[in-house]
Order: sequence, then C-alpha cells, then structure tokens
Amino acid sequence: MLRVEIGAALRRIRMSKRLTLRQVSALANVSLGYLSELERGQKEASSELLNSICNALAIDLHVLLYDVAHALEATKSVTTLTTLHRATAHTDIAA
Amino acid sequence: MLRVEIGAALRRIRMSKRLTLRQVSALANVSLGYLSELERGQKEASSELLNSICNALAIDLHVLLYDVAHALEATKSVTTLTTLHRATAHTDIAA
Repeated sequence: MLRVEIGAALRRIRMSKRLTLRQVSALANVSLGYLSELERGQKEASSELLNSICNALAIDLHVLLYDVAHALEATKSVTTLTTLHRATAHTDIAA
Repeated sequence: MLRVEIGAALRRIRMSKRLTLRQVSALANVSLGYLSELERGQKEASSELLNSICNALAIDLHVLLYDVAHALEATKSVTTLTTLHRATAHTDIAA
C-alpha cells in the first residue's frame, strides 16, 4: 500500500536526520497529529503536503520516491522468495 | 508536483502498452472521466486506486514509482542546468 510505504519512508528519513515530529510539523506547517498519522500510513498526503514535508526534511521529492520504490521492490522480492520457498518445501514433502 | 508526474507516468505506460482510457478504466473499475483527470494531474489518486490502475496496466507499483522518481529527477536536472546557464550568461554580460 503506497501510503504505508510513503509514511514509513518519511519516518526513516526524519529519524536519520535526527529531527522530531514536532520540528518537522512546525517546518512543514502541518499539525503534529496529522504528520504522525501520515508516518503510520493512516492518511493519504496531498502532493502539496508531500512537497512541504520534503522541504522540511531538506530532501528532493524524487529521493523520497526512490526510497519508497526501493522498499516496495524489496518487499516484493521477499514475498516472491517466501512463496518459492513454500512451494519447494511442499514439493519436498510430496516427493 | 507529484500528482502531475504520476498522471503523466500512468499515461506514458498506458500508451506504451497500447491500451485505451476506456480499457484501463474498465479493468481498474474507475470512471473514464476520473482516470482522464488523474492522467492530467487534476486529481490525487488514493493508494487503493493506484493499486487498481497498476493491476490494470499489469505493472508493479514500484515500477510506476521509479518512473515518476526518474522523471522528477530529470526535470530537476534540466532546471538546475538552465539556472546555471542563465547565471553564466549573466556573468558574461557583466564581464
């Protein structure tokens, strides 16, 4: 789910820059509660709000998107491997 | 603006697969008018709707995001080069 991955990426980047929710919410002009809900993937961010938050985090929007795309791709790879592993395990039992 | 770049990417991918708005709107269970507005960046797509459209286009969400991130990065590079070029031109005149 995109909003969950975007929220997780925003949190990762904020923590890596040692910024608090309070600092980013003040810089991005968004309420602390709303920012927290965004980070937990409970709200969709508008394009305007994502721009504000990226400015507050001092990153370009494309950096956020590469991060999200990479996380989604990694999740998919793990899911595929798990499925393959289960399929193989099943074959072993059947054999 | 994210929604404009997402819309443009959805359109690029749809055209590259030689699918019509009508086909994708039927597959993704979204009205043709709404899909057209999304492609023109006039509406924000929810995470659920983006999933449906990616399924209709037979692509993974991360593929769409890499495309969007790449387009945003390219736009930024062009803007930076243009700014540099203008700054240099200005210096030449001043010299």
